[in-house]
Amino acid sequence: MKIVIVGGVAAGMSAATRLRRLSEDAQIVVLEAGEHVSFANCGLPYYAGGVIEERDALLLQTPESLAARFRIDVRVRHRVTGVDAAAHTVTVRDLTTGLDHVETYDRLVLSPGARPIVPPVPGMERALVLRDVSDVDRIVAAIEGRASDGPLVGAGVDAPSGAADPSGTAAPLSEPSTDHLRAPARSAVVIGGGFVGVEVAENLVHRGLDVTLVELSDQVLAPLDPEMAVRVRQELEAHGVDVRTSTQVSALGPDTAELTSADGSPRGEVPADLVVAAVGVRPDVELAVLAGARTGPRGGILVDEDLRTSVPDVFAVGDAATKRDGLAAGSGPAGADEPTLIPLANLANRHGRHVADVILGRRAGMRPSVGTAVVGVFGLTAATVGRNEKRLRAEGRPYRAIHTHPAQHAGYYPGASQMALKLLVDPETDLILGAQGVGRDGVDKRINVVATAIAGGLTASDLADLELAYAPAYGSAKDPVNMLGYVADNLRAGETRSVQWHELDDLVAQGATVVDVRTPGEHARGTVEPDGGTGTLPALNVPLDELRARAAAEIPTGAPVVVHCQVGQRGHTAARLLSQLGYDVRNLDGGYLTWRDGMLARRSSSASELADARA
Amino acid sequence: MKIVIVGGVAAGMSAATRLRRLSEDAQIVVLEAGEHVSFANCGLPYYAGGVIEERDALLLQTPESLAARFRIDVRVRHRVTGVDAAAHTVTVRDLTTGLDHVETYDRLVLSPGARPIVPPVPGMERALVLRDVSDVDRIVAAIEGRASDGPLVGAGVDAPSGAADPSGTAAPLSEPSTDHLRAPARSAVVIGGGFVGVEVAENLVHRGLDVTLVELSDQVLAPLDPEMAVRVRQELEAHGVDVRTSTQVSALGPDTAELTSADGSPRGEVPADLVVAAVGVRPDVELAVLAGARTGPRGGILVDEDLRTSVPDVFAVGDAATKRDGLAAGSGPAGADEPTLIPLANLANRHGRHVADVILGRRAGMRPSVGTAVVGVFGLTAATVGRNEKRLRAEGRPYRAIHTHPAQHAGYYPGASQMALKLLVDPETDLILGAQGVGRDGVDKRINVVATAIAGGLTASDLADLELAYAPAYGSAKDPVNMLGYVADNLRAGETRSVQWHELDDLVAQGATVVDVRTPGEHARGTVEPDGGTGTLPALNVPLDELRARAAAEIPTGAPVVVHCQVGQRGHTAARLLSQLGYDVRNLDGGYLTWRDGMLARRSSSASELADARA
Repeated sequence: MKIVIVGGVAAGMSAATRLRRLSEDAQIVVLEAGEHVSFANCGLPYYAGGVIEERDALLLQTPESLAARFRIDVRVRHRVTGVDAAAHTVTVRDLTTGLDHVETYDRLVLSPGARPIVPPVPGMERALVLRDVSDVDRIVAAIEGRASDGPLVGAGVDAPSGAADPSGTAAPLSEPSTDHLRAPARSAVVIGGGFVGVEVAENLVHRGLDVTLVELSDQVLAPLDPEMAVRVRQELEAHGVDVRTSTQVSALGPDTAELTSADGSPRGEVPADLVVAAVGVRPDVELAVLAGARTGPRGGILVDEDLRTSVPDVFAVGDAATKRDGLAAGSGPAGADEPTLIPLANLANRHGRHVADVILGRRAGMRPSVGTAVVGVFGLTAATVGRNEKRLRAEGRPYRAIHTHPAQHAGYYPGASQMALKLLVDPETDLILGAQGVGRDGVDKRINVVATAIAGGLTASDLADLELAYAPAYGSAKDPVNMLGYVADNLRAGETRSVQWHELDDLVAQGATVVDVRTPGEHARGTVEPDGGTGTLPALNVPLDELRARAAAEIPTGAPVVVHCQVGQRGHTAARLLSQLGYDVRNLDGGYLTWRDGMLARRSSSASELADARA
Repeated sequence: MKIVIVGGVAAGMSAATRLRRLSEDAQIVVLEAGEHVSFANCGLPYYAGGVIEERDALLLQTPESLAARFRIDVRVRHRVTGVDAAAHTVTVRDLTTGLDHVETYDRLVLSPGARPIVPPVPGMERALVLRDVSDVDRIVAAIEGRASDGPLVGAGVDAPSGAADPSGTAAPLSEPSTDHLRAPARSAVVIGGGFVGVEVAENLVHRGLDVTLVELSDQVLAPLDPEMAVRVRQELEAHGVDVRTSTQVSALGPDTAELTSADGSPRGEVPADLVVAAVGVRPDVELAVLAGARTGPRGGILVDEDLRTSVPDVFAVGDAATKRDGLAAGSGPAGADEPTLIPLANLANRHGRHVADVILGRRAGMRPSVGTAVVGVFGLTAATVGRNEKRLRAEGRPYRAIHTHPAQHAGYYPGASQMALKLLVDPETDLILGAQGVGRDGVDKRINVVATAIAGGLTASDLADLELAYAPAYGSAKDPVNMLGYVADNLRAGETRSVQWHELDDLVAQGATVVDVRTPGEHARGTVEPDGGTGTLPALNVPLDELRARAAAEIPTGAPVVVHCQVGQRGHTAARLLSQLGYDVRNLDGGYLTWRDGMLARRSSSASELADARA
């Protein structure tokens, strides 16, 4: 059997090597338009930043090593320009010679990945992207003030015009250029505040550049909810990154970027010796379309649970292919999972192995996906799995949100540092819909546990029962994940009710009393301002330890009561106490810290609006 | 309802506070024989070592704070000396006044914990133990050469004689003494190489003492298998700890300890200004027996899944109470789980909350337990969940063992360090029976994921599908846990067969050829010695990349072939290749590294035997 794989990075190369391990008889051909195969995609920003010092470290395999070990016929600088699915052939252009030839296949595996999106604005042709090793070479050359000497393949860039390429090939309309650069770059604009944009921004700071991060939406890291993402924003700002949310680049000058608000109001100009576009990616479906394959949501190549496209003997894997959404409403082991797009390396690798198994008749059925991701930002970690609150709200689905602020390990052990965790729960089934975490240490560890719990079909309350490794330097006897389970269990059982940071104003408008059950010292250092910060309606301060004695005299009955503490734990005890005293009480979820983060998120977004109004 | 709780540390105090949060009406009395309640049990070794600097950090709550916040009647230095279950009363002795009184209860919760075992040998009365804050005070006093000025409660120590206390109270036959100490301790003997013993040894090294660690069995950290535990032994030795396995203390002199082998052969004398006994613990069942409650395996208080003892209205929680064994043969969601003992803080806390829920009629059914634990040793982490190979073998159960040596994150990202992981799998069901890990970073993270997968009923092969947070600084696109799943899946599908490090000699004796598929350089730096180290039968070295070309000419057919590489991954590719060429082939599981660790474990055990023979 002859298997032709188009694209030799994560999914494609996983498929190729797995095919060989399963079968010595298979003929395996990998066609890669770029210079390199099997390179360390996710390491590129860190090579740009000098964190990874050796360029060779990025090149995990070469065509030669793959031939020697796996007898795989790997051809770099070979672009597939056409597919004849009926004839089972592809047309291949050798980018070195410019010559075309036809290659037959028994099975075709498309692993084209996704192309960076470049906003279609004037001057954008000088923006660089970060998709492959050649791209990072160009960025490093720009940082160092050298003209990039590598060939500008540029196959991975979506043309700024957004128009389809009329030639029918994947050649871009314009290629990135670094010609104008004479001196080392001193300033940079990174367009896009997603995972890659944030990583690039950090790494350019490592290189000593003044960095402006421009993001069209009102927060960085869209997979997080705003009150979580704001901590990442603060970290970026603390390291000198000028973060501009609700902002876009409207034009690039030779060494500047012109900014506007989302609706086009001017927001000034920033220095931009170097511009990196990290707005996002678009699945590269060109070949799939040429082959006649159906596409799915957001343009991905639609595949079934065995990675088959709608065209016989044509498979698709990796970032360009759809995944089954494991968290759609009504999804589940028996449910009909909807197709979605999740461009993550772990799923791409999994796809690669799975398609090899399917092609050789070994097994069937990729599990539905939930999407687990992590990013480091100057020593802060942000991680996420599944749905966030914004999306659940947009989908109109019911959910419960839980915020906690545990330390990564026992508080009495040196080095304890607080993280923010968030869990989203289906109130009907108690199943876990998503989780997020931001903190200095131990965040990825907790999100991985939640991701595994989702895979195992555990409920949110079940998290309380997990036996997680505990010693004072590693966790707590009640691990942060256990605590999420306890809170979920309390909510599920109706033992406690909570109010979210963004719901507080409404409750107060309806006459609720807010009671801060922290100490007077904590209260004095900052408290919730349910009146919008005018200070006319400060929260009543009755410390938890005095609540039993003082409640009757000081807390009005007849109206709802919202209690809050610093993180929600004393608030829970207070809520239990007051509810037994006959109050209609809710605990402010996540306490003062979550409320404060929510307000910070709002303020940073309205600060942009204010700047907008001023301009 | 009046609830009396005996024992105010982890489980007892969790029960008390949960009871109050659920009910303002309950009368809650906590009786604690010791000086302190709710102290940081697991932090004690680190306070002894000066890692935790403030003694107050250990004292998480006081009777006063618990009264103020939770209206709990906490009485320290109150020992319960009798139970009349029919009358629903306990007899309580106030250790300060010496007076007894009778306390009634509606529900009695026994949370007595476990007592340190002290070997019954001459001189052992000067050995210290580490159970509570008073114990650690004595250890610190001994280190610093002060006479301990705290009261010697000593209620937690099993009498060296091992005889039952005829008085029927928990007063020890003899009390630890530090009178002989005049100068700061310069040497210490720690008896017992379990989790606590290893932590104490490390912390005494931090204090500058010369430490001998004496362990009766042939390895440290019994929950680990020998080829995993040997890495911890090496770490201890690298930091100057004199580790003596297969050894016991036969007598203590004023500043020495006399050692013998397990069968009593002399093994010399070591300096021992300070002696800490950390041999293990025995559930404190005295009160339960007085109450007429049944005990279970290894003497624990037998409880049902709702923590009820066999006596009406008497519950037991924490280290003294049995847990349901979630990994017994035939266990599972529907199976009859056997009672077992797992003295771990996370389960104790879980017990405490659960018993409160049960008493107040809230819910039923503790999940079966698997036991997840972690220990840090000079920056090395060892973690474990579920069964180990030794125990599965002792139980006569079939299993598959898988060893891997992944890095905690992408190898190309700075700071990558290799860990050792081990997975144990039920070959019939593919369910996970246990896992172990040892390494500098990321070990606890992986063991937690496996523990969660067990809780979710995932199979070993399912681990391949887990979506774990990946970025180069956090993991790999194929996370170490995914890789365990891939290996398990390959074994399950019969695609590959493996041989364990301890099975190699037998295979070679049966005529197997061993082929090292690493590079000649790696081969020269050390390879398996299937002839027992005489060097007469070196493994054939055919690097993987040359295997396809050289196999026919160099590897004999007709006899089994064992391939190996450094960690097992290239070996797998080689095994797949050779099996397709018609060879009867097995891959050495975990490669050279696991084999080497296994041999080191054997050698350290036989070194002791040699010393024994010499003596």
